[in-house]
Amino acid sequence: MDIRDAIKRCPLFAGVTNDDLDHLLRISKARESTKGELLFSDGEVAAGFFIVGTGKVKVFKLSPDGKERILHIVHPGGTFAEAAIFGSGTYPAYAQPLEASQLIFFPKREFLDLLRSDSQLAINMIAGLSRFLRQFANQIEELTFKDVPARLARYLLDLAGDEAKQVELPISKSQLASKLGTVSETLSRTFRKLTDDDLIVVRGKVIELLDRDRLEDLTFSFKE
Amino acid sequence: MDIRDAIKRCPLFAGVTNDDLDHLLRISKARESTKGELLFSDGEVAAGFFIVGTGKVKVFKLSPDGKERILHIVHPGGTFAEAAIFGSGTYPAYAQPLEASQLIFFPKREFLDLLRSDSQLAINMIAGLSRFLRQFANQIEELTFKDVPARLARYLLDLAGDEAKQVELPISKSQLASKLGTVSETLSRTFRKLTDDDLIVVRGKVIELLDRDRLEDLTFSFKE
Repeated sequence: MDIRDAIKRCPLFAGVTNDDLDHLLRISKARESTKGELLFSDGEVAAGFFIVGTGKVKVFKLSPDGKERILHIVHPGGTFAEAAIFGSGTYPAYAQPLEASQLIFFPKREFLDLLRSDSQLAINMIAGLSRFLRQFANQIEELTFKDVPARLARYLLDLAGDEAKQVELPISKSQLASKLGTVSETLSRTFRKLTDDDLIVVRGKVIELLDRDRLEDLTFSFKE
Repeated sequence: MDIRDAIKRCPLFAGVTNDDLDHLLRISKARESTKGELLFSDGEVAAGFFIVGTGKVKVFKLSPDGKERILHIVHPGGTFAEAAIFGSGTYPAYAQPLEASQLIFFPKREFLDLLRSDSQLAINMIAGLSRFLRQFANQIEELTFKDVPARLARYLLDLAGDEAKQVELPISKSQLASKLGTVSETLSRTFRKLTDDDLIVVRGKVIELLDRDRLEDLTFSFKE
């Protein structure tokens, strides 16, 4: 494992420079862990946070009857417990490697001291984090949009029955949006997309179905 | 518009304290903008970034032939151009309010100076951003998972044809995962879910369909 590479792959450190990396390396500790080793427990005082270099780590809670609920599985390039060092100061869950893993540990005190003394590192971290946040927000928007064309196509075909080439929406567009599990803005975007693709023509509440076969295909488009 | 509230609603400032807010308020400038006013242009030197208090703002690029491509529409509580003040120093797009909007402007120099002089503010921003990033990552995982049960149900029913109560997968589970647009881990989780819901029984590559009607329902589950 190249510790430098592992740190650079984390969203948390996406914005740091090579100099920043040198400072981070100085306070980090490489740690080999074995499968099933308990890295920390729910409620334990947070000593620091981890990056996974190789292997994978399970972060989980235990229910009162001892049943495990996995919160996430952290893969190489992922961090865990970073929230704990900023917040209340205790770990909110358990962590256990699912296989022998190479970890990088950042002790809380040293890490916060570094951020305090090196404001450019902190600014670079904020820059990288805000870029990632933007990217994740776009991804969520795309994912949320992705299936709306298929749902709208299904809805229109169901409304049309076996033969009709034209349907009249029996509900308002905002009701339709909520029926399809989306918002009005995304529904409008979807009507526009189907129109641009020559699948439908929209005249107020009357929708003409130009190509039932391709609308049918669209409802299964996830299979491609 | 309560500027304080608007700032607090931004993911960028999710982690800041009331004291931090006082400092941020001191350097921020309230700005009324009219519909269609050009807030900044692609390539212009970045003077600072914005929070939308009320209204909405379109951030867009122009293609060589002058066609607009909207990158995002920013709603109240959203920021824009924050990446520009950390990065190259120029705005990467155009911004224009879609309606009269109340904005909060943070001048670049003052904002970076504040982060440099107030390391706790920077640390609190990192804390809030990393919490949001975790939350967005979970949301992406959920969204990615959401439709896999419907896709798997559709695939199994198609494979079974009109009658069969049992199918044998003609491809490996990792090939199936990629066919369904997901990864092996999520596919396993989905097989487990359908099994827990008494819809199927999995014996290696042989899948018994326990309840075709409910599997059929599942393929349209988005409509509920």
